[in-house]
Order: sequence, then C-alpha cells, then structure tokens
Amino acid sequence: MIDETNQSTFVLVHGAFQTGATWDRVAAELRGQGHSVHTPTLAGHGPGASLDLNHADAVGSLVAYLREHDLSNVVLVGHSIAGSFIAKAAEQVPDSITRLVFVSSLVVADGHALADEFPPEQTAIFGTLDPAQGVLLPFDLIRERACNNMTRADAETIYAAMTPVPVGYFTDQLDLRVFYYLIGSGKIKTSYINPVNDIAFPPGEYGWEKRAQRLGPLCRILQTPGAHYAMTTHPTELAETLVHAGRD
Amino acid sequence: MIDETNQSTFVLVHGAFQTGATWDRVAAELRGQGHSVHTPTLAGHGPGASLDLNHADAVGSLVAYLREHDLSNVVLVGHSIAGSFIAKAAEQVPDSITRLVFVSSLVVADGHALADEFPPEQTAIFGTLDPAQGVLLPFDLIRERACNNMTRADAETIYAAMTPVPVGYFTDQLDLRVFYYLIGSGKIKTSYINPVNDIAFPPGEYGWEKRAQRLGPLCRILQTPGAHYAMTTHPTELAETLVHAGRD
Amino acid sequence: MIDETNQSTFVLVHGAFQTGATWDRVAAELRGQGHSVHTPTLAGHGPGASLDLNHADAVGSLVAYLREHDLSNVVLVGHSIAGSFIAKAAEQVPDSITRLVFVSSLVVADGHALADEFPPEQTAIFGTLDPAQGVLLPFDLIRERACNNMTRADAETIYAAMTPVPVGYFTDQLDLRVFYYLIGSGKIKTSYINPVNDIAFPPGEYGWEKRAQRLGPLCRILQTPGAHYAMTTHPTELAETLVHAGRD
Repeated sequence: MIDETNQSTFVLVHGAFQTGATWDRVAAELRGQGHSVHTPTLAGHGPGASLDLNHADAVGSLVAYLREHDLSNVVLVGHSIAGSFIAKAAEQVPDSITRLVFVSSLVVADGHALADEFPPEQTAIFGTLDPAQGVLLPFDLIRERACNNMTRADAETIYAAMTPVPVGYFTDQLDLRVFYYLIGSGKIKTSYINPVNDIAFPPGEYGWEKRAQRLGPLCRILQTPGAHYAMTTHPTELAETLVHAGRD
Repeated sequence: MIDETNQSTFVLVHGAFQTGATWDRVAAELRGQGHSVHTPTLAGHGPGASLDLNHADAVGSLVAYLREHDLSNVVLVGHSIAGSFIAKAAEQVPDSITRLVFVSSLVVADGHALADEFPPEQTAIFGTLDPAQGVLLPFDLIRERACNNMTRADAETIYAAMTPVPVGYFTDQLDLRVFYYLIGSGKIKTSYINPVNDIAFPPGEYGWEKRAQRLGPLCRILQTPGAHYAMTTHPTELAETLVHAGRD
Repeated sequence: MIDETNQSTFVLVHGAFQTGATWDRVAAELRGQGHSVHTPTLAGHGPGASLDLNHADAVGSLVAYLREHDLSNVVLVGHSIAGSFIAKAAEQVPDSITRLVFVSSLVVADGHALADEFPPEQTAIFGTLDPAQGVLLPFDLIRERACNNMTRADAETIYAAMTPVPVGYFTDQLDLRVFYYLIGSGKIKTSYINPVNDIAFPPGEYGWEKRAQRLGPLCRILQTPGAHYAMTTHPTELAETLVHAGRD
C-alpha cells in the first residue's frame, strides 16, 4: 500500500537537444511509487521545433504547461541547461512550486547568459553560433564528456535523437533577481543532485560544487550514481535520489 | 574466532548538540568484531547540561574520562566539532593515544576558534550568540545540510534530541601548537573520514579536503557512504571504515 | 562467444618502484573478456635494475616493447608516474596508439619534470636525492597515502617488493609539446581514471581534477572504486573501468 502522505507531483524538465521522453524510465519508476509525474517538452526542443525563439519562450512553454494542468505543490526538476528554465519559471508561478531540484544543472548567475556559465574550453568548441542553424554540441564532446560511462553505440543512439535548440537560449542574458530572492528568503527550497561520474562540465573552477553553492546555505545536495545522463543509465537510482531531493 | 592482535580501543566522541548515544549502533558493530569501545558524553552536552562552560571544560571531561578508565593505545575519534576536542585532549595525554580519527570534522587552525572555521554563510545563520541560551543551529540548516539523505521524520527525531551547547565552545580561541607538533612529528598519527554525501559544510573553500590537508602529508584519508550523520544512517559501513582508519 | 569487434589491445604500464606484475590480476580479468593484454616492466624498475638512467630510457624501453611486439591500435595505460612515460612514448609511435588512459596519474606540464608535479609537502619528504641510491618513497608515506585502504600487512607486502628508480626519472625536464599537440588535435584520445579513495596526491591544488583538466575538454573521465593501488585491491572493478575508458 502506498503512503499517500509521501506522494509528490514531479515535473521533470529535459536538458538541451532532448525532449521529455528522456525522462521516461525515471518517470515510470516514480509513478510505480505512487508519485504524479509530468515530462513536458519545452518550446524549441524536439524534431521540427522552431529555432527562432528566445530563452523566455522556453520558460513560457513550461509555465503554460504548469497552468494548463493546474499543478500545485510541484517539485520542479531541471536537467543541465534546464536549471535556467526552472529558475525563471519559478519567478512566474512561485506559489505552485515547493522545491526546485537541479540535476547536473547549470545555475546561472544574475545577469549572465547560459553561455557565460560554460568553461572557455567548451565555448571555443561551440564555434560561431548561427541563429538559422541553432546550437547542437559536436558528437565528440557529447560522447566523451556526457556519455563517458556508455558504449559508443549508446552514445550514438542518444546523439541521433538530438536536435538543435535556438541560439538565444544560450545567449540571452537572464534577470534572475526574483529567483535569487525566492530561494534566499526560503519561499522556494532547492536541492542539487550530482551524479558522481558527471564530467559534462569539468571539475574545478566550473565544477558542480561552485554551481550548487549559488543555491545558498540551505540547498540540499545529494550525490547519485551515473554520469550526465543518469536518467538513461541509472534510472532506478536517480528516481530514488529524486525522492530524497524532492521531499519536505 | 577473533584475531586479538587486530583489536583496538576506540573512544568515539559525538558532535555538537548530541551525546555519546549517537554512536550506539557503530559501537555495537565494533564490539561485535572484538574491539573495545567507549562513547563518553562530554561536558556541556545532553539534557540539563551547564551552558556556563568553556572549550577547555569539554576537553577536560574527555581527558578525565580517558584517565579514569585508564585507557591506553586509544584510537580517539571525533565527529564534527569534536575534532577540536580530540585535538586538545591529545595535547594532554599524548602517550595514551595512537591515532586521532576525524570524522566529518572541523580541523581548527592554531589560534582560531571553532566559529572561525564555519563558512560565512553559516555563521550568519548563527545570529547573535547569547551565552545564557547556548548555541543550537536552526532546524532548517540541520535538516537540509546535515540530514540531506534522511526523511523529514528522521531529521525531526534527531533534532528533537538535540540540546544547546555553551557559546564558549565556538568562540574560545584555541592554542593548538602542541597538537600540530604532535602530528607533524609523527608522535600521533591521524586519519580523516569523509562521508561522500556530507555537505554539512559546503564543498569548495570550506570543503573537507582543505580540512584534511591541515592534518599533513601523512594523514590517512578515507571516503565512506552516507552523510554528516553516517553513524545513524550507515553504522555498519562507518564501523568498517573506522577499522580501516584506526588500525596501524 | 566473445564479440571480437569490442576487443582491445591493452598495454598496462606500472607505476614507480613496481613492475608489470602489479597488473597481473587486472590483466587476467581483461584476458578473460577476450582482450589482448601486455604488462611490460620498464627500464629502471624491478630488482637489480640500473639506476644510472634518464627518463628517456624508460620511455625508450616502452617504445621498444611496442615495436618488438608489433602492436597497433593500442590502448596505452599508465599508472601514477607512468603517465609521463606513456605521454612521451605516444610522441614516438602515435600511429600505434588509439587512446592513452591515465590511472591515478601525474600529467606533466610541458617543460616540467615529474618532481615539479608533486606537492611541496611531499617533495620535502623526498629529502636530498642521491643518484647512486635512486628514489624510493618512505614506507610511512606509501602506507598512509597510497595504501590508505589496506591492512598494514598488505601495505608491507607491497612495499617489500618495491625497488628504487633512477633519480633522473623525477628530475629530467620533459619537452611535451608533441604530446599536447597529439591530444589537442584529437589524433590521440585520452581518458583519466580516478579511484575515489585515491589520496596519494592530496585533494585540492594538486588533486586529480587539475591533472585531468590538462588532458583537455575531450578527456573522458571516470571514477572507480579503490585507492592508489586499485589494481591490487579492486582488480575486477578496475578492469571494468578500463574497458569503459579504453573503448572507442
């Protein structure tokens, strides 16, 4: 029998180049434990998505999803660059959200763009950004850094499903003063999950510890098995850690 | 049959706001392996304890315990702020101690007070220290940082048993020259145990690596499962790691 | 039946004071999975080895081994200081090597000697280097830092088999421009394996993250159980991680 008092409403937001389907296995695990789970695909993501969009469009699509489904007491989870989308969404619907959970996420400083949070060695790889083409990281970077714990075949499968996202998502400067007020005042709580083998962003200056620290002294930090795509390689373990991270 | 040559005498010292009972499950594990284990409660800790005490009083109560029980060849273990108590106790009875083991511990610099070793973001939370009230960290900080891997109910149970400790324990400046001589000269060996999910103190500038480094190039460092209260959540694993840390 | 398409040729190079026999258990694991494995002992290592050698002599003996055995498509693995030997060997036979795998390795900066990569606290322990005696780290340092997860008896067994290596191995300055060109241009790929309990070099300024970062933004980094001698304490796990690190 499921203890209903411990059930949560999870909204799981995928990272760049991916869709809500990325979370399928984790969602199944969480639903099996009685939780309610949503895995929306944000604007600018998925095959055929428009590339003529700004960061605010992705945020807007997330907020619209939360409102359309009349969700409340949400544990809002963002993977990788989606840390920026959940932060901005929280500014618009703070009363619907109990906790923001950052998984392998960038935590953007107020006034920065997402691109400012990448280490220089990686932004060099970006090359010249062409708005008509969108942004898609090269396979070698995805394979070696984000898929470091996978076979090449599995990395190729993940990459084959990826699509470019709008350049503006990376270059729009973000006003995050309300977000930092919300978490600084304790109105919205935060957790940060780091998979121990996640080296999508290099350890050290740009390492996860620095990002997690931006979430303040009350951020609940948890390590979990796997690497940047723990939802693919370790769905059971990540689901368990999400429960630990999301609960009151 | 137990190999008596590998048996140790462990003295396990609890952290702030707690008592020797914190170690009960670890102590049972160690005794089951044939080790001798002591879990004293230091002065200024536990229900009804005096708050009109200095750091030296806690140290004195530990030294008195070691002498009363005529203990020798002790593996002296300190959790969290007790790193400062075992360091000062070692100065008084160096010949009774073979190794100091710091578990999730602060390692105070010579001339510093314990409060100097907390990150500024946490000392702000302390607020104004009132000697009559003692020091007890707020529940939110304990729950999110020290109990990050527990249910809220378990965190509440731990917090309900906590009592304030004297303000002087945090504000007394400590002369640790003898301690640093003892470990620098190799007269007393040291180990440092870090539970991988311990974020009671934030990673980075105030992270465990910096603290462990103060123990010098011959400090034996070991990681272990769990978080700040690994003795509560992972007693079997911590007992095993204590054996690794404490042996010759 | 073994899938021959996934078989690799591993050349496993031991660390200082040791010989190829250090890899015996890992080699057996890998051979059991169908891989081809070589474990040469480099010049200047092993009982009775000459101490009147330079860094280039160790490299030369490795290159000679690769050529004599007509090896190609090699996954060349270096443990500890052997990171410097595999880097220099790659400069001479780049077409024979598909990937360099650094295990608990030093990654020497261009123009540095191996000794420059040790933390000052450890170089102090080296003492005055005597070319006639060679270099052998003191037992206490090996026992506490490299054998932190072993019994004293096991540490003594490892130490008893150790022999000094030529002083020049540590003091010769290395021109590594070709090496950094090879990995920077992607002609040779790299992986870095860090055993989670490895504290042979202290975390922080001289920690493994800094070393791994020298291998560039496409270095595949993986954590593995165990400590500095994971090949001794965790051969099965290290073999598995070597497969992850070495594959395409």
